[in-house]
Amino acid sequence: MTYCLAIRLDAGLIFASDSRTNAGVDQVSSYSKMYSFQPTPDRLFVILTAGNLGTTQGVINAIQRDLDSPAGDDLRNVNYLFEAAEYVGSVSQAVQSRHREEGQEADSLTFGASFIIGGQIAGHPHDAYMVYPEGNYVAASPTKPYLQIGETKYGKPILDRVITPQTSPESAARCALVSIDSTMRSNLSVGPPIELAFYEADSLRLGRHVVFDADTPYFESLKRAWGEGLQQVFDTLPRFDWEQD
Amino acid sequence: MTYCLAIRLDAGLIFASDSRTNAGVDQVSSYSKMYSFQPTPDRLFVILTAGNLGTTQGVINAIQRDLDSPAGDDLRNVNYLFEAAEYVGSVSQAVQSRHREEGQEADSLTFGASFIIGGQIAGHPHDAYMVYPEGNYVAASPTKPYLQIGETKYGKPILDRVITPQTSPESAARCALVSIDSTMRSNLSVGPPIELAFYEADSLRLGRHVVFDADTPYFESLKRAWGEGLQQVFDTLPRFDWEQD
Repeated sequence: MTYCLAIRLDAGLIFASDSRTNAGVDQVSSYSKMYSFQPTPDRLFVILTAGNLGTTQGVINAIQRDLDSPAGDDLRNVNYLFEAAEYVGSVSQAVQSRHREEGQEADSLTFGASFIIGGQIAGHPHDAYMVYPEGNYVAASPTKPYLQIGETKYGKPILDRVITPQTSPESAARCALVSIDSTMRSNLSVGPPIELAFYEADSLRLGRHVVFDADTPYFESLKRAWGEGLQQVFDTLPRFDWEQD
Repeated sequence: MTYCLAIRLDAGLIFASDSRTNAGVDQVSSYSKMYSFQPTPDRLFVILTAGNLGTTQGVINAIQRDLDSPAGDDLRNVNYLFEAAEYVGSVSQAVQSRHREEGQEADSLTFGASFIIGGQIAGHPHDAYMVYPEGNYVAASPTKPYLQIGETKYGKPILDRVITPQTSPESAARCALVSIDSTMRSNLSVGPPIELAFYEADSLRLGRHVVFDADTPYFESLKRAWGEGLQQVFDTLPRFDWEQD
């Protein structure tokens, strides 16, 4: 599995991803799932990937090949971010159907992959979209200003409690780290290193990009502070009325 | 969906369940999913249910009918708790296969249901088992001293952080409430009232049984204290090294 998320803030976008891939417990590897593309100075895209590793790598390679070729239907020519999401969806469909046609008798979900694409094209607001395995897509919204792909449930409650469009980029990034840490603790298929990328609204270039290993001092201190803080809050919760203190 | 859990402590067992059932968004109802049986003074069972409501009600009814009939293969005659789990599994299989045979062309999972059965038979330790839709079962373990059925992922991280076999019953019960609250906040298919039951090891009778509505003062104060405490911990997490305080 995998866990990636993007948060759409008024101030910009936060992207976070884990690096574990697995095809059975004896096929566990570490791959980055975060890719950025700046094909022209007026646009910046970050793509996060989850699902079949053959499909996601095929999609990223095809996107890059399109950019290396004479301009056609690619990230250079989309006019809106949603068109970029459509483009990723159609590349994903093409890669999946090629693998299906090549004689594999797997069901269609086997090659499935999900993507998040976020960023900005000059003249339009920054935004983020989730692209489903079927190629269709949805945007983040003000009431749910984040998108998740992969192993999404364990890390959702803290996002629901903390994230609003007005959250500061650093707080949102910390929340993403906590969300991923909670997921890693409950699910072996999500693992370090964790990548974190910041996009500042209207900057049209990728901001800070940080990689945290399990033992990176900041990530360790964050995990410890969160774990101890939770335990402390838990220990001071109101007692049942029949309890002696 | 549904969310039920049982926690196996050295001191006894904690059972917790939500009450929401849904078959599509226009078929949302409230049903208890917690049942206790004391067929003879030397044994006490609590059963939690998740899955197809027709199946779970059919299983509970069949268990009760067996107890009302002359003694046969039922909860009165099992010698071990695992045999009670086997019995629940076989009743569940019988109910599911009857519904399938009755001409419904649904796939087998449509009628699926999961159960947790916990309790104690005199002379044996207290324990808890999860019974899968296929009728097989697993026990809790010292390293994972809880069992969940239904919508399990949102509420798992807090259990992983807090629960050990040495946790006090009241702390474990609070943790179950927090786990269910986190699930309700992230998933509409889990809802109040919340039922909580305590079983004290070797007591051979059901202990406290409490029902919390969304606006029950204790549950409200617990949710508020947890939400505010989390936010406070979150706000004081270590800053990134590039951040100004």
